[in-house]
Amino acid sequence: MAVEREEGVKLIGLWLSPFVLRVKLALNIKGVEYENHEELNTWDKSELLLKSNPVYKKIPVLIHKGHPICESMIIVQYIDEVWSSERRQILPIDHFERSEARFWAYYIDDKLFPSLKDHVSATTQEAKEKGAMEAAAALQPLEKFLEQSSKGKPFFGGDDIGLVDIALGSFLAWIKALEKLDGFKILRDDNLPKLATWAEHFCSHDAVKELVPDNDKMVQVVEFFRLKFSTA
Amino acid sequence: MAVEREEGVKLIGLWLSPFVLRVKLALNIKGVEYENHEELNTWDKSELLLKSNPVYKKIPVLIHKGHPICESMIIVQYIDEVWSSERRQILPIDHFERSEARFWAYYIDDKLFPSLKDHVSATTQEAKEKGAMEAAAALQPLEKFLEQSSKGKPFFGGDDIGLVDIALGSFLAWIKALEKLDGFKILRDDNLPKLATWAEHFCSHDAVKELVPDNDKMVQVVEFFRLKFSTA
Repeated sequence: MAVEREEGVKLIGLWLSPFVLRVKLALNIKGVEYENHEELNTWDKSELLLKSNPVYKKIPVLIHKGHPICESMIIVQYIDEVWSSERRQILPIDHFERSEARFWAYYIDDKLFPSLKDHVSATTQEAKEKGAMEAAAALQPLEKFLEQSSKGKPFFGGDDIGLVDIALGSFLAWIKALEKLDGFKILRDDNLPKLATWAEHFCSHDAVKELVPDNDKMVQVVEFFRLKFSTA
Repeated sequence: MAVEREEGVKLIGLWLSPFVLRVKLALNIKGVEYENHEELNTWDKSELLLKSNPVYKKIPVLIHKGHPICESMIIVQYIDEVWSSERRQILPIDHFERSEARFWAYYIDDKLFPSLKDHVSATTQEAKEKGAMEAAAALQPLEKFLEQSSKGKPFFGGDDIGLVDIALGSFLAWIKALEKLDGFKILRDDNLPKLATWAEHFCSHDAVKELVPDNDKMVQVVEFFRLKFSTA
């Protein structure tokens, strides 16, 4: 992958955030180098973050040529549009396929993310089991879409990673940590066979494998959040 | 405005929906003729809707050349991309301005819409007053953005209507009905002066004025919803 220095690209992020990972994946796919500003303490936000995203005060923010761009999927589309020439497209070229990709990226944030949040915040065994089941249920329509759209190819984007792969794949580190911690498999071969295979392809992809957070560290993060929720 | 017959464009909608209005505005701006399928009963959905949007089962759906496209802002972007040649663009051309427009369209659905829903479902005088205040508070960042982005021009999109105008303008009929019904002005000249002037420009725009639902009918709709909520 050709890496080119792009003047003035800075990412305000945090290693454990799936939303930040989306931006890193997109930059990596496009071969864009950037300065990483790690937002270490989400309870004491940096001046840079507060100034760059005054409305939501949330990571990720991409700063390009002095302009801040907010919201992960908006940033991914921005990256796809700005670094478009002679490089791989993240969104499909076909208009209808583009709208489909945007729809499923929206679905993932609207339906899968809340179920994963519930799962992370679960403290009883019953709530953990319910969380795993709800996450698997939210993944079912994606299993169907993958079967229908990929036409035997490994990714939602076909032969290579696209918008839906990035949107969904960003949650895999969290899903795997939850699976390890609770012992309930979410991406089960008998329930979500296409997605289970897709997840393997995704995590071993060249643009992905170096960026996916370490499983043991993610397990510690989930444990930390659960401790926080249970004592809140 | 040049009107051209486009083969196979059908909109599944409902006259009172702000989300459907967005699609109608975009089609009108582009001069695209379409067949209107009015989804008369939201409690007994048509086969066409259930088949076209099996995930959410929600309006609006645009069907183009047999393909269903769902989610209002995704549809508006689709329309902007498909009918792009020699016609007016809805999204800005500049990459950063595009990302800004997408961000504020997202903000409107994420922050303004829930406050308007709360306002519509308010049944006590206190809840109505609180609803109006919360809607006005959600509009404050948009007032600031309008001041900063329009540079003295009438619209978020500059000289003409763009993505943010469509996203926000689609709620004006609901806001005006709530103002009339409850006697609390949301778009007040002393609180949101830029937006108050913008709303006048928007509603008298050629592509808009024929599509905005009648105020008296919208008042009846809000009264109907409130009756439904209070007896639910």
